Amino acid sequence: MAIVLGPNQYGKAENRLVTVTRDGAVHTVRDFTVSTSLRGDLEDTHLTGDNAKVLATDTQKNTVYAFAKQAPVGEIEDFALRLGRHFVSTQEPISGARILIDEHSWQRIEGHDHAFVAGGDEKRTTAVTVEGSRAWVVSGLTDLVVLKSTGSEFHGYPRDPYTTLRETTDRILATSVTARWRYQGTGIDWATSFGEIRSIMLRTFAAKHSLSLQQTLYAMGEAVLRARPEVAEVRLSMPNKHHFEVDLSAFGLENHNEVFYAADRPYGLIEGSVLRDDAEDAGSAWLTLPAF
Amino acid sequence: MAIVLGPNQYGKAENRLVTVTRDGAVHTVRDFTVSTSLRGDLEDTHLTGDNAKVLATDTQKNTVYAFAKQAPVGEIEDFALRLGRHFVSTQEPISGARILIDEHSWQRIEGHDHAFVAGGDEKRTTAVTVEGSRAWVVSGLTDLVVLKSTGSEFHGYPRDPYTTLRETTDRILATSVTARWRYQGTGIDWATSFGEIRSIMLRTFAAKHSLSLQQTLYAMGEAVLRARPEVAEVRLSMPNKHHFEVDLSAFGLENHNEVFYAADRPYGLIEGSVLRDDAEDAGSAWLTLPAF
Amino acid sequence: MAIVLGPNQYGKAENRLVTVTRDGAVHTVRDFTVSTSLRGDLEDTHLTGDNAKVLATDTQKNTVYAFAKQAPVGEIEDFALRLGRHFVSTQEPISGARILIDEHSWQRIEGHDHAFVAGGDEKRTTAVTVEGSRAWVVSGLTDLVVLKSTGSEFHGYPRDPYTTLRETTDRILATSVTARWRYQGTGIDWATSFGEIRSIMLRTFAAKHSLSLQQTLYAMGEAVLRARPEVAEVRLSMPNKHHFEVDLSAFGLENHNEVFYAADRPYGLIEGSVLRDDAEDAGSAWLTLPAF
Amino acid sequence: MAIVLGPNQYGKAENRLVTVTRDGAVHTVRDFTVSTSLRGDLEDTHLTGDNAKVLATDTQKNTVYAFAKQAPVGEIEDFALRLGRHFVSTQEPISGARILIDEHSWQRIEGHDHAFVAGGDEKRTTAVTVEGSRAWVVSGLTDLVVLKSTGSEFHGYPRDPYTTLRETTDRILATSVTARWRYQGTGIDWATSFGEIRSIMLRTFAAKHSLSLQQTLYAMGEAVLRARPEVAEVRLSMPNKHHFEVDLSAFGLENHNEVFYAADRPYGLIEGSVLRDDAEDAGSAWLTLPAF
Repeated sequence: MAIVLGPNQYGKAENRLVTVTRDGAVHTVRDFTVSTSLRGDLEDTHLTGDNAKVLATDTQKNTVYAFAKQAPVGEIEDFALRLGRHFVSTQEPISGARILIDEHSWQRIEGHDHAFVAGGDEKRTTAVTVEGSRAWVVSGLTDLVVLKSTGSEFHGYPRDPYTTLRETTDRILATSVTARWRYQGTGIDWATSFGEIRSIMLRTFAAKHSLSLQQTLYAMGEAVLRARPEVAEVRLSMPNKHHFEVDLSAFGLENHNEVFYAADRPYGLIEGSVLRDDAEDAGSAWLTLPAF
Repeated sequence: MAIVLGPNQYGKAENRLVTVTRDGAVHTVRDFTVSTSLRGDLEDTHLTGDNAKVLATDTQKNTVYAFAKQAPVGEIEDFALRLGRHFVSTQEPISGARILIDEHSWQRIEGHDHAFVAGGDEKRTTAVTVEGSRAWVVSGLTDLVVLKSTGSEFHGYPRDPYTTLRETTDRILATSVTARWRYQGTGIDWATSFGEIRSIMLRTFAAKHSLSLQQTLYAMGEAVLRARPEVAEVRLSMPNKHHFEVDLSAFGLENHNEVFYAADRPYGLIEGSVLRDDAEDAGSAWLTLPAF
Repeated sequence: MAIVLGPNQYGKAENRLVTVTRDGAVHTVRDFTVSTSLRGDLEDTHLTGDNAKVLATDTQKNTVYAFAKQAPVGEIEDFALRLGRHFVSTQEPISGARILIDEHSWQRIEGHDHAFVAGGDEKRTTAVTVEGSRAWVVSGLTDLVVLKSTGSEFHGYPRDPYTTLRETTDRILATSVTARWRYQGTGIDWATSFGEIRSIMLRTFAAKHSLSLQQTLYAMGEAVLRARPEVAEVRLSMPNKHHFEVDLSAFGLENHNEVFYAADRPYGLIEGSVLRDDAEDAGSAWLTLPAF
Repeated sequence: MAIVLGPNQYGKAENRLVTVTRDGAVHTVRDFTVSTSLRGDLEDTHLTGDNAKVLATDTQKNTVYAFAKQAPVGEIEDFALRLGRHFVSTQEPISGARILIDEHSWQRIEGHDHAFVAGGDEKRTTAVTVEGSRAWVVSGLTDLVVLKSTGSEFHGYPRDPYTTLRETTDRILATSVTARWRYQGTGIDWATSFGEIRSIMLRTFAAKHSLSLQQTLYAMGEAVLRARPEVAEVRLSMPNKHHFEVDLSAFGLENHNEVFYAADRPYGLIEGSVLRDDAEDAGSAWLTLPAF
């Protein structure tokens, strides 16, 4: 029996990067949270504390900021690929990198060249994995909070001795969507693809009559795959943000799905993936990412 | 010497209330967090545990939900007044009430009757105080995050032995605005007033060339008071969300206000009030509210 | 009618300060969050952006760190007084200062000279106000979470049309205590006083049979005032962290206060103050502090 | 090409469960957050919304509370196994379950039978996976925040064009440990094992002279594996909570590792696993758990 080092990675997490670009008096603001992780021949530092192969996390941070100056950031997928490939190609012991970028949105204050108001919590995300000369791109969005005030049912589920839930043919359905989709290849128009996928998900959530949140989840993933050949797979995590109809009968009031209590915890949690059966192999695309 | 009970209040905090109203197939969703506090002749419960004068906080919660059903919520100021006056007028020992309501925004998903996407963190707020037959309304907004990428300077400050900051004639100015304004009277078109005030604040933040965040804060308050006679006073709390220009000189790069590190802590914190010198007395309007 | 600047203050919030002192090989770690606010003749910066009287918040931050080096921090009250008096005495236009310090606890890992494990969320706090040559100290604690599994009742409250709560003679009582107490004078053994007050509060919470959380709150404040003549006044904010007995009757199970659901929101919120009727005037002690 | 459903699971997350047991007048309080996820033949609900195989998440919640009444919860590993096996054995279409339990600690207030003060943020955790008749237990701890004020160096790392970090032979090392370890088998004295493992980790963190956080991480995992044959594998995630020595030279002060600025973001993030090379296969133990 021996004790050995298993999978590992290290890096600098949550570098807060904001860039300003100028087209004459008209400014554009971009806002990112960038996390880098490096993988490779890292036994020495773990076993003996010899750091000769450990590019400092401080250096990784510096690289993020310097790269943002050396050329326009562009789409987050491209910036992540550029960072990941840099680390892998310039640091001999580093054979792999994973770069996470969240983009936070800002809207221009109407009529003003250089003043902005922050968008909501929703973030566009990417998780790029580089392994030697290969690369995988998993993009997504998170904290997209949506709600349907009707068009959602839940019934027909099994009743065991612990089942007390009443069936319903009309309930509020609310969730905070976290989605990640794996692209096939890297030469993609990331911005267009993101915009279309987000739009498809929103439209499907809105239009699909829902018999279960699982059905809605699958429909959202399926609609993306049908419309976007560049996507191999979609993974979704959708908490069921319960809105309970308040029982007002004690006060002589009938509540016809008008007044709700929005609960915090517990919440349902529906997680699933939808994929093409002929998709190219995922390789290391999902390595160390959350399962859903 | 005697030990006595001083000011006190009690209630139910953060009741999460969501309502759905229907105009045929077209739904409207409203989303609120309501906190109630009652004040009055409450010595008994504190001194002996006799609860004969203590309307249970559970009852206060029920009242919030029942009232939301009995008549449309309407503007949050009106709903808060209705709740506060109810408690004061129906519970003999209760002489005062303070009702806090935050409204969270939802936008319709384009083209859909009953599907919505959550707005950002920004919330419309009100803090209504009822005291016997009198009432005060302090409304506001919070978590309005804004940024100017230029048009902000900071220089001319004193240099003591601990001063190392370099003067600047061009910096990013970013803040998360919390504003509260005290209305004169209660018969006001709350929705219009709120919309106008928010718009004035945004426009002033954007347009005002800033020599200090204090100057911007004052300008925002002043502009509201100039335009809106129904407002007696504005209180603002504006953290200076520092965006530090990253020093890239070690890498042979000149950073001309292009690449920034957005810091979390510490942050500047600028707090102030702007008022009419002939405003009616504030009475109990601000009692137990945060100072800014 | 004129529009004027009202009360205001500015400073640097949440400076994270950690100090290490050494007694031979034995180290001591202290961990603080320090916020400074200055008040005074600050019209110019608000009205014209002239910053000649505005000691930069960056300078305030530097001062915090430099002072922590120049002499041992000692008790947080003394450190806050030292900072506040420095700003007021060295900056002519600054007539007042408020210094907030939270101390976070660390425990030594047993048997190790320089290794520590963080204490919980509970923090010792102080809020020191300096105004010219005068000073007030309001100390406290926050996030002290306590629970009684019996010895708490709630009944005898009025029943109005919205009351559905059932009376109970045995419930869980849980709260997260935020307390602030105003000291009379400044020449006090802060550490001893804090330790005793915290202990009195804990013991009173535990021992006092509770007919309402208000009664518990008052008893805790009263016990402090009876035992500690240096304290003029205690203000307490105590959320009622509801633990609901789960109804298991549908499963043929009787739940005798054994299994509870710990709810997040809404929560009761009980706030109150207890004071000596002959206490010295509070002056500016509470200015801009939360009401409870 | 076809679009198919991939891996998925669903359940009720963050059920807040508190139990009180009584030994005469002496009470014991336990506090848990329980999340359940079920896996199996769930295509129907995803594809058609037929819920005949979907045990409602509300039922899962009820089961958690009912089980806590039917028999003492005991160790979290046993309770999770009991829940997981129940779902798998009673619901034909459900072939697998994953139960997550966090236990929050409470300490008795000295000398009191039924009064308690909450422990810190640190939580004992378990993640139990049941698949048919098989089961895996991955236990751990999270939010164990530790700090060494000396005995930590970092040097000898490569210097590329973006490296500006200065080497140090004496720095503060602080981290918040999240650890998960996979047990071999299920007939284990969970409480003793947990206590020993936590203690070994703390002692190793304290005693191990650190040349890199990676070395500390490995040493902690290795020490657990050497001492505890019941553990097959340890996975650790350890953020490097940077404490930067403040440069006070501008004020004529020399800072000899005495005064530090504790930074929030970015932070280093060191993640790794340590395992026996002859450990039994992990099977589904880690399925959908975070990678580290």
